[in-house]
Amino acid sequence: MAGLRVGHAGRAGGGWLSGTTVVLAPEGGAVAAVDVRGGGPGTRETDALDPRNLVQRVEAVVLTGGSAYGLDAAGGVMAWLEERGRGVRVGPDPAHVVPVVPAACVFDLGRGGDFGARPDAATGRAAVADAAARESGHAVDVGAVGAGIGAVVGQVKGGVGTASTVLGSGITVAALAVANAAGSGIDPRTGVLYGQLFGAGAGAGTGAGTGVGAGADAGDGPAGAAGSAGAAGSAALVTPPPPEVHAAALRRLAEAAARNVAPPLNTTLAVVATDAALTKAQAQKLAGTSHDGLARAVRPVHLLNDGDTVFALSTGTRSLAETDPLALNEVLAAGADMVTEAIVGALLAADSVETPGGTFPSYRDLYQQ
Amino acid sequence: MAGLRVGHAGRAGGGWLSGTTVVLAPEGGAVAAVDVRGGGPGTRETDALDPRNLVQRVEAVVLTGGSAYGLDAAGGVMAWLEERGRGVRVGPDPAHVVPVVPAACVFDLGRGGDFGARPDAATGRAAVADAAARESGHAVDVGAVGAGIGAVVGQVKGGVGTASTVLGSGITVAALAVANAAGSGIDPRTGVLYGQLFGAGAGAGTGAGTGVGAGADAGDGPAGAAGSAGAAGSAALVTPPPPEVHAAALRRLAEAAARNVAPPLNTTLAVVATDAALTKAQAQKLAGTSHDGLARAVRPVHLLNDGDTVFALSTGTRSLAETDPLALNEVLAAGADMVTEAIVGALLAADSVETPGGTFPSYRDLYQQ
Repeated sequence: MAGLRVGHAGRAGGGWLSGTTVVLAPEGGAVAAVDVRGGGPGTRETDALDPRNLVQRVEAVVLTGGSAYGLDAAGGVMAWLEERGRGVRVGPDPAHVVPVVPAACVFDLGRGGDFGARPDAATGRAAVADAAARESGHAVDVGAVGAGIGAVVGQVKGGVGTASTVLGSGITVAALAVANAAGSGIDPRTGVLYGQLFGAGAGAGTGAGTGVGAGADAGDGPAGAAGSAGAAGSAALVTPPPPEVHAAALRRLAEAAARNVAPPLNTTLAVVATDAALTKAQAQKLAGTSHDGLARAVRPVHLLNDGDTVFALSTGTRSLAETDPLALNEVLAAGADMVTEAIVGALLAADSVETPGGTFPSYRDLYQQ
Repeated sequence: MAGLRVGHAGRAGGGWLSGTTVVLAPEGGAVAAVDVRGGGPGTRETDALDPRNLVQRVEAVVLTGGSAYGLDAAGGVMAWLEERGRGVRVGPDPAHVVPVVPAACVFDLGRGGDFGARPDAATGRAAVADAAARESGHAVDVGAVGAGIGAVVGQVKGGVGTASTVLGSGITVAALAVANAAGSGIDPRTGVLYGQLFGAGAGAGTGAGTGVGAGADAGDGPAGAAGSAGAAGSAALVTPPPPEVHAAALRRLAEAAARNVAPPLNTTLAVVATDAALTKAQAQKLAGTSHDGLARAVRPVHLLNDGDTVFALSTGTRSLAETDPLALNEVLAAGADMVTEAIVGALLAADSVETPGGTFPSYRDLYQQ
């Protein structure tokens, strides 16, 4: 996604299994919004994103492990930004800025074995420095990186996944997800990933899938005809794993579940970004509808022990068709689809992990893919 | 659903294709909440349902066709309730009541040929009288009834559908949906209904499916292990229609789309009801998470031209486990699943309709099911 940079920091081993991911906007920031739909959220600076409130743009968004403790990572990102004079100017001295750095956390405490091993301001600083060292629009590292290091979906190893698509209008919509849910990403009847039912994961494991329906069935106007082409090029229906493989996977998951402490909280986080020029209110609508992509990839979702949160960022380089009040619709549809794709990407990119804190088999490992 | 009664009124023919559905609570009302997530809603008395606000219980909820004009149907329901002294008491005289009747509308204007043929107070009164004439917990009429008479999903005929499930705890969760979306309920790759991917529709066409996963994979504690049984009894994966049937269906839908005026607005409405004793805030959480079931059955959804709204009602006869803060989770999961099931039920119950206002083939007709 042109203009945005993503950095990760964190640690696995020595009691650790956690980290922080930073999405760094271009200097001057991106229009930002958020929709918090989980019942157990941990967030920072989300009220500033209300469309009625002052701040229009943010320089960075932080996704972090460490539950509410990990929100301190945002402090390290603020310090890094302040040193560069980036943030909301609050006086005549250009160095007097307050960077508004919205943050949300996933629950991963104790998964590495040490309940106290969690991201702090130094982790945030390392992640933003990692982001700043990248080129604009670089390929984003996925899997067990940053806030995804300790992520688990049901009993299956989660992590970071990404996806992007370019709509017919030329607008890009991209998503980065940290998949870490109380519910499951796997259809227990078959072993298929729920998101694959919607065509996600065709670009398996690369973290850069071409998208669920790739901008086709949202783009044909308000009627949204069922007869539209959709993801016509992709497989008709995903082929389920052989029943004996699925049965073996269920056994391994049940063993892991018996060994692991059931986490009291989880949370899937996502950042959906577009180069479409959105107002804060439009960005908030995008953050909200992007949760639909989460609903399609994880079931059940948005529970009391999930803190599911989606941020939306608009870099604003491309205008929406101003004559068409429904021009936003294809961005909304793609936002949901990219979140589904990013979650499937995260699950397909993950490797199995075993720590003193638990056993977290990966989907690839379980299903030999 | 014990305690609740559902009535329908409306008309097809003579320029009409619209109506009103009323969910009538037991005398004294049900705890009520709402979550409006579509971008083009038409509602009445929804602010009263904010958990911070005064009114705790409502006597009835109205779902209506006729777009914002149809909201007048709630006036007829209010009059019927006032005559019976049902509502919020506002003075020493027991006859001095104000019934709070939340309402939401679907867009169906002109689908019967006459833009002015739409529900009014008399339609609302007829629908509530129909409800009152039923037994508590009666089988609800589905298909082209009430607010579903003019409903269309994509280019396919929609309508009213229902579903209910009894959880292991004995709690019942039920949903009634009016399926009328800008997006599609049909996977354009295969012709399968999206909701069927999640196991919905096994009780096809009866409007009383046994549920997506029927309370199984939400009930096994906070970890929500992927290895839980889920909908283990149902078919592994739905069998798609033969490719030539799907191709013919796509041709018919394209012909219908070319003939019909693309509707500027749509909207799927649902009422999710449970006998679990919920606070208003818990009911609002249920209304919110139930939108996940909409996301699984319709894609894209919650667009600017959808007014998607879910009401939640709690009749409050069964306590949630007070010692377990997560006891609500299985109700939340089931609420989403029942909405998916109800939408699939609506699509499978519908018959094709042709009026001077348009051609609306049904799923069964298109796919010979």
